[in-house]
Amino acid sequence: MATKLILDLDTGIDDALAIAYALGSSEVELIGITGTYGNVKVDDGVRNSLAITDLFGHPEVKVYRGLPHASAAESFAVSDISRLIHGSNGIGDVDIPDSSREPESESAVDFIIDAVKTYGKDLVYVPTGPMTNIDAAIAKAPEIINEIGAIVLMGGALTVCGNVSPWAEANIDQDPDAANRLFRSGAPATMVGLDVTLKTLLTYQQTQRWRDLGTKAGNFLADMTDYYIRAYEVASPHLGGCGLHDPLAVGVAVDPTLVRTFDLNMQVDVQGATRGRTIGDNTRLNDPVKTMKVAVDVDARRFLNEFMTRITTLAEQAG
Amino acid sequence: MATKLILDLDTGIDDALAIAYALGSSEVELIGITGTYGNVKVDDGVRNSLAITDLFGHPEVKVYRGLPHASAAESFAVSDISRLIHGSNGIGDVDIPDSSREPESESAVDFIIDAVKTYGKDLVYVPTGPMTNIDAAIAKAPEIINEIGAIVLMGGALTVCGNVSPWAEANIDQDPDAANRLFRSGAPATMVGLDVTLKTLLTYQQTQRWRDLGTKAGNFLADMTDYYIRAYEVASPHLGGCGLHDPLAVGVAVDPTLVRTFDLNMQVDVQGATRGRTIGDNTRLNDPVKTMKVAVDVDARRFLNEFMTRITTLAEQAG
Repeated sequence: MATKLILDLDTGIDDALAIAYALGSSEVELIGITGTYGNVKVDDGVRNSLAITDLFGHPEVKVYRGLPHASAAESFAVSDISRLIHGSNGIGDVDIPDSSREPESESAVDFIIDAVKTYGKDLVYVPTGPMTNIDAAIAKAPEIINEIGAIVLMGGALTVCGNVSPWAEANIDQDPDAANRLFRSGAPATMVGLDVTLKTLLTYQQTQRWRDLGTKAGNFLADMTDYYIRAYEVASPHLGGCGLHDPLAVGVAVDPTLVRTFDLNMQVDVQGATRGRTIGDNTRLNDPVKTMKVAVDVDARRFLNEFMTRITTLAEQAG
Repeated sequence: MATKLILDLDTGIDDALAIAYALGSSEVELIGITGTYGNVKVDDGVRNSLAITDLFGHPEVKVYRGLPHASAAESFAVSDISRLIHGSNGIGDVDIPDSSREPESESAVDFIIDAVKTYGKDLVYVPTGPMTNIDAAIAKAPEIINEIGAIVLMGGALTVCGNVSPWAEANIDQDPDAANRLFRSGAPATMVGLDVTLKTLLTYQQTQRWRDLGTKAGNFLADMTDYYIRAYEVASPHLGGCGLHDPLAVGVAVDPTLVRTFDLNMQVDVQGATRGRTIGDNTRLNDPVKTMKVAVDVDARRFLNEFMTRITTLAEQAG
């Protein structure tokens, strides 16, 4: 049986690439997308997820609406930097048709719990935005931390500086409290953070291959990703490309050998100057049981090859 | 030829244990101790280093006075927490006779430079206090970064929280500017930080073995280290022992296979809220040349065994 995958997305540009990577991977079955907030508001992300799965020829993928703001907040507004990087519609201001489908009536939180109950160790959950939905699911059904196969999250920065502050990465920074509860919960989580995602870079050379396909899906991928690369030229000119944050988390969910990991019981700083920082929990440093893994290095060449092969094939076949 | 070793010490309790580890290691020749400030004032540390080398039967080890305060400061005062952990004389308020020797007339900075010129790649420099002396040596003779064998420093915290703040370790915090210049210099440095030193713990069970020797050196080691363990019971009760910070750096200088390292071009935050934090330098993340290594895991059992064997043998022979 193929591994069952849930993507939890704040569907901006690299989230869209993560959908494409998952749909292009026969090792996994994408059983649902749960929506969160971050790059965009939750409803805009849900809209994007429905439209993108349609465009890629996979209207069978169900989309569930998640919580609209951080666990300790009352509302959420998209930041200026998110709009700069992902465009005001979240997908590089590229126009694609709305789906005729609606999100499911079941909530994202209930869907996550139900999926763990149904698939157990065969389920991998990949959050690439804030940890708000999985935190709420664990609060409602704490036993799922022992029942789920794995959580592979895009977020955090252990050995490198953050991207919203010198110590905080954007996804964790959206809801540090939720991430801290997840990290301390004992759930089997692998952190795919800036430590590795800033080493997996895409350039115009690759997006041109999608454009050359001459398909709608190829043009969408190329136009959207070129927007992202241009934003990186402004925001992080030293990198020489755009970071493949969310697709790398899917890549690791499909094939954990793409990264080198380090076992560490972690926490998120929730108080003081470094709120939002991901770091080892010193009180559990010598606990022989380590429940989390942190990716500290990546085979960037192999990942990029998998990324291009899987997504280009999908965009060719989708038409 | 045995590797030549220089220890750069702010001679408190674990610095004294580092001296014992070095003197008990036939793989290395301790050619000198350079004094710095931190656990104690530089003159008190120099006094301790002279007295301790005498007590251990090694009056041939020369001691050089280093710089008395941080590169960007005008003075230095011992902190309350340092006095709590190391005692007001730096060695657990244990009385040992002053040496009849004086420190050398040559400065620590000039001695470091001369030693690099004399021994080159056969020289390993082990700073276990602030990086002020090596920073000044590099400023005076920048070519030594390419000529020295290795720098194995006790300091910093990459994957765990700091010990003077949630982000800063004490040695780096004393002079973040000097450490940042060293980290960015391209010098071949291995960081042995709290990531590993908090995993190498000593208890009363081990110090009793020194007391049982019935020698002056054994009694000194036991009394001094018991003071340190008691301080840890107050300051870090969750650890269940005292951290062997400085001796582990010597251990790694003698045998690098005691730790698992990770290649990373690093920096020290010198501005903003996290001044004193050791972290990857994002601007050099994808530079294929990595000049630093960070110890992220340690074979604690094997190190503790080496530690006890070498130091106990020394304390027995010294009488």
